[in-house]
Formats: sequence, C-alpha cells, structure tokens
Amino acid sequence: MKDIIVQKFGGTSVADTDKIKNVARAVIKEKNNGNNVVVVVSAMGHTTDVLVKLAKEITPNPSLREMDMLLSTGEGVSIALLAMALQAQGCNAVSMNAMQVGIITEKIHSKARILEIKTEKIQEHLDKGEVVVIAGFQGVTDDFEITTLGRGGSDTSAVALAGALKAKRCDIYTDVEGVYTTDPRIVPRATRLEQISYDEMIELANGGAGVIHPRAVEAATQHNMPVRVRSSFKLDNLGTLILGVDEMELQRPVTGVAADTSRLRVVVCDVIDNPGTAAALFDGLANENISVDMIIQSYARKALNTNDIAFTINKEDLTKTKEVISGLKQELGYSNIYIDDKIAKVSIVGAGMINRPGIAAKMFRTLANIGINIKMISTSEVKISCLVDESKANEAVETLHSVFGLDSDEIAEVKGDLPNV
Amino acid sequence: MKDIIVQKFGGTSVADTDKIKNVARAVIKEKNNGNNVVVVVSAMGHTTDVLVKLAKEITPNPSLREMDMLLSTGEGVSIALLAMALQAQGCNAVSMNAMQVGIITEKIHSKARILEIKTEKIQEHLDKGEVVVIAGFQGVTDDFEITTLGRGGSDTSAVALAGALKAKRCDIYTDVEGVYTTDPRIVPRATRLEQISYDEMIELANGGAGVIHPRAVEAATQHNMPVRVRSSFKLDNLGTLILGVDEMELQRPVTGVAADTSRLRVVVCDVIDNPGTAAALFDGLANENISVDMIIQSYARKALNTNDIAFTINKEDLTKTKEVISGLKQELGYSNIYIDDKIAKVSIVGAGMINRPGIAAKMFRTLANIGINIKMISTSEVKISCLVDESKANEAVETLHSVFGLDSDEIAEVKGDLPNV
Repeated sequence: MKDIIVQKFGGTSVADTDKIKNVARAVIKEKNNGNNVVVVVSAMGHTTDVLVKLAKEITPNPSLREMDMLLSTGEGVSIALLAMALQAQGCNAVSMNAMQVGIITEKIHSKARILEIKTEKIQEHLDKGEVVVIAGFQGVTDDFEITTLGRGGSDTSAVALAGALKAKRCDIYTDVEGVYTTDPRIVPRATRLEQISYDEMIELANGGAGVIHPRAVEAATQHNMPVRVRSSFKLDNLGTLILGVDEMELQRPVTGVAADTSRLRVVVCDVIDNPGTAAALFDGLANENISVDMIIQSYARKALNTNDIAFTINKEDLTKTKEVISGLKQELGYSNIYIDDKIAKVSIVGAGMINRPGIAAKMFRTLANIGINIKMISTSEVKISCLVDESKANEAVETLHSVFGLDSDEIAEVKGDLPNV
Repeated sequence: MKDIIVQKFGGTSVADTDKIKNVARAVIKEKNNGNNVVVVVSAMGHTTDVLVKLAKEITPNPSLREMDMLLSTGEGVSIALLAMALQAQGCNAVSMNAMQVGIITEKIHSKARILEIKTEKIQEHLDKGEVVVIAGFQGVTDDFEITTLGRGGSDTSAVALAGALKAKRCDIYTDVEGVYTTDPRIVPRATRLEQISYDEMIELANGGAGVIHPRAVEAATQHNMPVRVRSSFKLDNLGTLILGVDEMELQRPVTGVAADTSRLRVVVCDVIDNPGTAAALFDGLANENISVDMIIQSYARKALNTNDIAFTINKEDLTKTKEVISGLKQELGYSNIYIDDKIAKVSIVGAGMINRPGIAAKMFRTLANIGINIKMISTSEVKISCLVDESKANEAVETLHSVFGLDSDEIAEVKGDLPNV
C-alpha cells in the first residue's frame, strides 16, 4: 500500500493557467516520490470576489443557501483545469466536487462544519493510479444541499480529507516559505521554523499569522495529522511541519511573536457590581455570535458598588456590540462606553513556556524598558498577550523577537502580501 | 392542482445582473397567472466562451469529462443569481443543479442524451409554493459523473423537464419575437408565425433558423409538449406556438423559407458502378460521425461503368471527409474529388405541401425565372430543398417568400444577431 499525501493549493497558487500548470508539476513531483496524491484546491485568485460582487448587484442580502450555490462554482472551475493540466503533463487525474466525494457537513449555510467524509470513491480512483483533485471549501448535506465551510475552508477540507484517508501528511502550499517566528514584513530577521506544535500554531494563527487557518490546525490536532506549510514556488523548500508537541524534536521557551491589529477594545464603565452582570453582558454578546477575546474586570469600587469591564472584539463587530450593550442598559447600569480602536495585541507563543516561570516577567520588563504601556494582559498555556498602542506594535514585536533569541542570521525573503487563507 | 409552466431563458437573456432581474419579473408574471413555475437557465452571456478559453490555455485537447465539469459551473452561477433575484422581488425560489434534481443522462461526455428526469424534489419545492430554478445544459450519470447535453442543451433540458413534469407548456424565451416565415435580416417583410408544427419547426431549424434547437423540438414531439418561442424583452407578445400538426388551427402549403450556408458540396467523380460502393462511402462517413445531407448519384455511364456521387456536409467536417474518401480509394476507384463551398441550401417548409403536388414545380419555376441554377434537390414530407450558388441565396429566399404569399404588411423589427441556441 502506497502512502497518501494530501496537497492543498490556495487561490493565489491557482490564480491563472500558468500557475495551474506549475501546481500540476508540484503534484507530479510528489507522485513520483512513490505516493498516492489527493489534491485540494480553492477557487482561482479573485473568483470569489467577482461572484460576491455579482450577488450584491442582485440584492444586498442574498440568501446564504444561494450564496453557497454561487460560490461553490469557483472550485468547480479550478479542479477541472488542474485535472486537465495534470493529464496534459501525462498524469492520470480526475476532478471531484464535494457532492461527488461525499464531504458531508452540517445543514448550515456559509460556515458549515464537516461531519463525515466518504472515502470509497477517492480510494477507487487512487487504486487506478489516478491523482484525485478535490474541490476545497465546499460540502454537501445529507439531503443534498450545497454548503460552504467559511473562512479557512479549503485548509480545513484538506486536513479533514487527510484525516479521513489516513494520509501520511497534509501539505498546505502557499506563497510564503513556511511559518516564521514573526511576520517577516515587520522583522526582516524573522526565522523560518522547521517545526511547530499544533497549540503554538493555533495561537500564532489567532494572533494574526495568516499562513494557515486555526480551524484547519484544530482539525489536524483531532486527527494528529502532520501538516506541512510550504512554498508552491520553491518546491525543494520543506517549509514548516506542524505536529503534536510530543513529536517535536526541540521545544523552545518562545517559538514566535505575533501582532494582531484586527481588534478593538471596549470598556464598559461603572457597571453595577452584582452577581450575574458580567454573565448577562457576555451571554448577550455570545448570542449575537460576537467573539470576545481578552477580558478584564476591574476590582470593584466598594464605595460605589461598581466596576469597569473591558474586553476586545473584532473591529467589524462594533455596531452589533454597541447594540447589545445598549439593550442591557437596565441590567448593567453603566455610565458610558469607551472604545479604543488604535490597539494591537502583541503575543509571544511557545509550548515550552509552561515550565519556565520567568518568561512573562521578561516580556513585561522588555516592553517597559522601551517605554511601551501595557493596557491589558491575557495568558494561555502556550501564549502571553499584551494589549498595547497600535503605533507601538511593530517596535514591540521587533524587540521581543530579538530579546527571546529568535533573530535569524539571514534576512527573510518576503514576496508581497501574506496569503489569504 | 395548479398547472406547471416551464420557462427557459438563454445566455443572452441572463447576460448581466440587470437582465437577470428582468427575467425574475417575467417569472413572477407567470406565477401571478396562477401557475407553478419551473425555470431553466443557461450560463450568463459569454461565460462558456471564457471557460473554453481557459481550458485551451491549459491544453489544446482537454478531456471531455473535465470539460463537462468545467462548463457545468456556468449554470451554477446563473441559477443562484436568478433565485436571489426572485427572492429579492418577494418570490420564494430555490436553485437546483442537475445532480440535485436527478437529470440522468447517458455516460457520454459533451453530448449526452437525457434518459430520465426525477421529479420528486422539484414537486416538493413547487408544493411549498416555490419557483424552482434549474440549471440547463447539464446532466448526471447514474454513477454521479457530470455530463453536458451539447448544442441546444438548455432548450432540450427545458422541454424534457416540461415533459417529465407533465407541464401545460414550455416557454422558450429568447431575444427574437418568435418564429418567422424566414430570417427577417434577409427579408424585412418576414411574418411572425402564430403556430407552427413540430415537423415544420425541425425542418426550419435544420435549415438554419436558429431560434430553437431541433433536438429540443424532437423532445417536444415525443412528449407532445406545446412549446412557445417568445421574446424575453416584450413579455406581452405571445410569440410562436410549436405544436402537433393535428392541433394546428390552420395549415398552409408553405409555412417558411430558410437558407443554410453552413454546408459544402463534395462530388466524388467517376466512382466504379458496383453494388456496394455507395454503401462503403456512406458507411465510412457515418463511422467518423460525419452527417451527410443531400445525396445525388448520377445515372451510371454504361460505357465506362462509372458514375458521380455528390453530397453535402458541414464545412467543419471537410478534412475528415477527405480522409475517409482517400482511405476508400481502392474500393471506390474514383478519378478526383470536387469541392464546392460557395453553396446555399434554400428550403421551403410546410406541413400542407404533401397534398399539393404543384408546390415543388412552383419552387423550381420561380428560381428558373430569376436565373438561379439548381445544383441539387432533396425533398421530405414537409420540405423541398434546392442547392444554389451562395451568392444567390438571399435573392432566392426573398423571391420564394413573396411568391408563396408569406410577405407581411409590416416590416419586422430585428435586433442584432439571431440568438445562439
């Protein structure tokens, strides 16, 4: 039995027919290594944007079901073209959409989760020596409705397929050379990591490193599937291997530094300090599907029986958040709401920090030494995050990267924007 | 039980989002008449051309399976957008592709024939008061391969769906106002026909009238399904009703005149006059899927024991035809091949001509009177065709149109090119 390798190529890697021919070469190279190959592709380049624009011309509020029908056509184009390119290069190949494979999801449009993947048909094609090219991002319900998986969907499709097929590895091809200790656009001496653990990768991804979507890393964790993030333009570069912490060859106290400027801080001032007020607030936000990140509740001012509750949200959720808080005016009894949208969350991530108590102190001291004020702090087992002024974010990242010994001897080569996942 | 009306809108009718909104209005108008409505749409405007161009950039010979996968995405876009437009105008609607409906075809890519249409899911949606928007042109095999129906596919999808659903009528919306006695671009006094029989329509369509594909008319004949060809821009215009000859209110000796310049004449000279030589020639052509039209075999020249065989083919089949004839040199023993590509087939069509023996003679005399030489003649029960010089085609059509009393009192309004079917 040959090993199965699942390869995933994103929209930028299949943006035009020349790039699709390049992808075919990368697929054939892997097949020539003696493996069975399953390829997952996204829609070409800006296809999704074009389709969304058409829908908006029709109506500002298209139904999610019809949006999924519309958007799923994008991958139909890229899988067919890649199968043709493989055949033109002498490699037997066949394209399959999610309905043909049986990538079964929840009955939720625009952000369904995968429930089950049927592998029989894929296996039949592999047994005939064919490369199977599968549409990422899309799924189908058990009553034959087309769904899509939402952001990071194609990465998740690839990792879930690798898990279902018991693949040896899932390779996520992208236009960067792997996962770096920090964003090379900010710190040119960022170091490419050879290995990183699932937990570290999730924290770095949530912290703004857009190489792979956190949902896909969560799927990899579930299946304990090794995932390699690598360049679709430099095929000899092995990129970064994401794997279980137990399988890592080396654990560093700090693996990476990230800055996230996508969020803003909301401070609800002078909230009545009763049991249940915080619960009422965060229940209300959760009901509106608003994801809350750092939370700080100040010590109650005994005399006034009030405190302040501060938290961070995605910038795009601001309007909904204000509505929720206004709706709870009676229960919370707050004086006013203060919005701070010029903030950045700077995080250090490392699976090894749990056993090294001095890491947090070293981070705070480093920021203090360069005059950066810390507005909020949050920690997890593998991450310490500090909220700072947005204008100080790059300086904080650079200094932390250097202080924690992550600077490379070489300058990283950076091509354009980081890829969308 | 409400009646079901199937409406079909071609690529030009859904070429942009404004046109799609217009189509939605035409659908709602029909629904407001008290009918259940099923809509069949083609891909938007030039989508298919764009997709074919992408495939050709990948490889000059893409596999037919992958071409079907690629091209079927076009209708996925238009059905979703039309369903959105209907919903935005307050009409419950749902889109379905061929896989979701179960439009089962032969296992032949790029020109499959429909074997069976499952109606349960469509009926469920209709019972909920929804308009069902279905992708034309595409099908699926019973083992879940995507197929396409070839030229005229969306018309055929619509008529076959109407048949399976026992619809009251199938309306083919297009950018002309109906079927005319002849091409209004050639004869401005062409008359729109209120009714035409299936046989007449097939002969007119084969004769070059591109309003509806002959395959779709054949499907209508099978189901005895009334088909209305009408304008998607003038919704009050009832267009032309195509129906069985027995249901026609009025039978005319001549219903229409058509000219077809898509063919050329091949003359194989001095073929040995043995039993079986003609069969060998036309078997050879049929094996290469070359469709032969008019055939004339001259009287044998007794002294030489040879004769000439002339026939017409599609211009695009010339290379293959020459190969077939060269391959049969031994059996046919011909002297040379003569190609005449400056010809036109001019036909008069009418279900009533079978009982009126003078029609053919009147046609030949009319052409002789204006000095047009007839190179070949062929007849069917409802058609008489004469091969003439291409340069004389329009004059022949105009004169025949007038002589057979088809001229209208009004000048037909002609918009741009005739639609592609």
